[in-house]
Amino acid sequence: MNELHENHTAAWLTQAVIDSASTAPDARLRTIFSSLIEHLHAFVREVELTPEEWMAGIEFLTATGQKCDGVRQEFILLSDTIGVSMLVDALASRVASGGTESTVLGPFFTTDAHDVAAGGSIAKAGAGQPLFVSGRVRDTSGQPVANAVIEVWEVDGTGTYDVQYADRVEPDCRGRLHTDANGAFDFRGIRPVSYSIPGDGPVGAMLAALGRHTMRPAHVHFKIESRGHVPLTTAIYAKGDQYLNGDAVFGVKPSLIGDFVRHDDAAEMRERGCDTPFFTLERDFVLVPVQVAAPA
Amino acid sequence: MNELHENHTAAWLTQAVIDSASTAPDARLRTIFSSLIEHLHAFVREVELTPEEWMAGIEFLTATGQKCDGVRQEFILLSDTIGVSMLVDALASRVASGGTESTVLGPFFTTDAHDVAAGGSIAKAGAGQPLFVSGRVRDTSGQPVANAVIEVWEVDGTGTYDVQYADRVEPDCRGRLHTDANGAFDFRGIRPVSYSIPGDGPVGAMLAALGRHTMRPAHVHFKIESRGHVPLTTAIYAKGDQYLNGDAVFGVKPSLIGDFVRHDDAAEMRERGCDTPFFTLERDFVLVPVQVAAPA
Repeated sequence: MNELHENHTAAWLTQAVIDSASTAPDARLRTIFSSLIEHLHAFVREVELTPEEWMAGIEFLTATGQKCDGVRQEFILLSDTIGVSMLVDALASRVASGGTESTVLGPFFTTDAHDVAAGGSIAKAGAGQPLFVSGRVRDTSGQPVANAVIEVWEVDGTGTYDVQYADRVEPDCRGRLHTDANGAFDFRGIRPVSYSIPGDGPVGAMLAALGRHTMRPAHVHFKIESRGHVPLTTAIYAKGDQYLNGDAVFGVKPSLIGDFVRHDDAAEMRERGCDTPFFTLERDFVLVPVQVAAPA
Repeated sequence: MNELHENHTAAWLTQAVIDSASTAPDARLRTIFSSLIEHLHAFVREVELTPEEWMAGIEFLTATGQKCDGVRQEFILLSDTIGVSMLVDALASRVASGGTESTVLGPFFTTDAHDVAAGGSIAKAGAGQPLFVSGRVRDTSGQPVANAVIEVWEVDGTGTYDVQYADRVEPDCRGRLHTDANGAFDFRGIRPVSYSIPGDGPVGAMLAALGRHTMRPAHVHFKIESRGHVPLTTAIYAKGDQYLNGDAVFGVKPSLIGDFVRHDDAAEMRERGCDTPFFTLERDFVLVPVQVAAPA
């Protein structure tokens, strides 16, 4: 047991906290804890955080946790809006170069999407303007990736995810697809619109205090998995959207902007079975093969 | 609107997040936000936080928020156990030199303590071994501070705060005292014991993973307020306690260690109205006068 230090100073304190975890069995946890304590304490010292500001922080974090429920994840939203999600993504995606770039999962992915056959619709009728999405999944050597599982999800025409409806009984505007032998996929959805992230919680209050808006540019989420390839979580953003340069969660990358093309030709509309103009998006995805570790 | 940066790198991201708050109306909030983002992102980059570790962090913070209720504040407990509470205290108390040192408020202060007359008891009969506390409150020039409000609270003889009992109907082992014209105070409580902070929540799980114990040395909390003086939140720790050098919340300062003296003389016991040995603590507190700002 150490002597109690006569000078219980800020500098002593940081080291004492780090030292308290010196016998943690997990070396990685020790590394993470030490770095977190160093940086968190450095922040507190740098701004000379006052007791009142500290209490405001405690109350903010508490409210953020208490806003979470089965369909609302306010801490992911917080992480998204302060760039931590995209930073983790940026660090992780360095190992998967050559493939389609990744972006934030966001707080609206669910695991209950229905299987949708090729050409089928992920959205119930009337959810928004028709969108037809098609493309191919291939690997970095150009080979088609057959039987990849593609989860897609998006807002409806009002800018709302299905889980944001209190009376949701089953998934809408989301589905699970499989690529064919040529790596091709094809589904009908709705044209995504730009929308506000949930602004009625602590994160919304934070963004308001920071003078920030809550909007995201229109996009469709894609989560693609295939045996032997690095899983890909990404999204395609609508070219020309006014929020491409001010996304509330910093998720847009130039390579992920796609052209959602409008079609209003009567013959085309008939051919697609639409009585209104529709949109198309053609987009391929590239997966990175999992590296096989060289024998030691 | 800025051009979308072609290199959506980690470094670009940190600056983009900071810039997003550049129009926040509150300059202090801008300062705090910028520093927090710099340090938080630096931590993520330094340890190369993985998506799995990030998700573990999200789940930990969510569980911490959801553990909070009217009588449990798990985020304050987290702040205490990672030294942030004592760091904020250390920074704040630099302005109050010459007075009694401060320490953590902790998560167990309540506002419903009853008024207790001089010499009265803050603890119901049988809560633990009898303790008689007496002392004086004075200012840094030695003058007595009359009519100061002293909130005191402590665990009972089993190491439990009243709010930790599910069937709590009214305060126990806590009270509100007032100093007399000589600055004196005097109350009966129970001898505090070392105890475990609540270990059944996310913070307990964290401490276990870090190889840390959850114990605090025995102490009595004091929160002293008087018009014209800097408020003082402190505690007196029991000399000889085995956890003085390993306090789970880093709250012990050498100047705050007091001698809880045991008395087992039959005549003394009779005089105090005790049928068991009792303890005494004599302890003065020094308040710092509020600085009157010099005219500009």
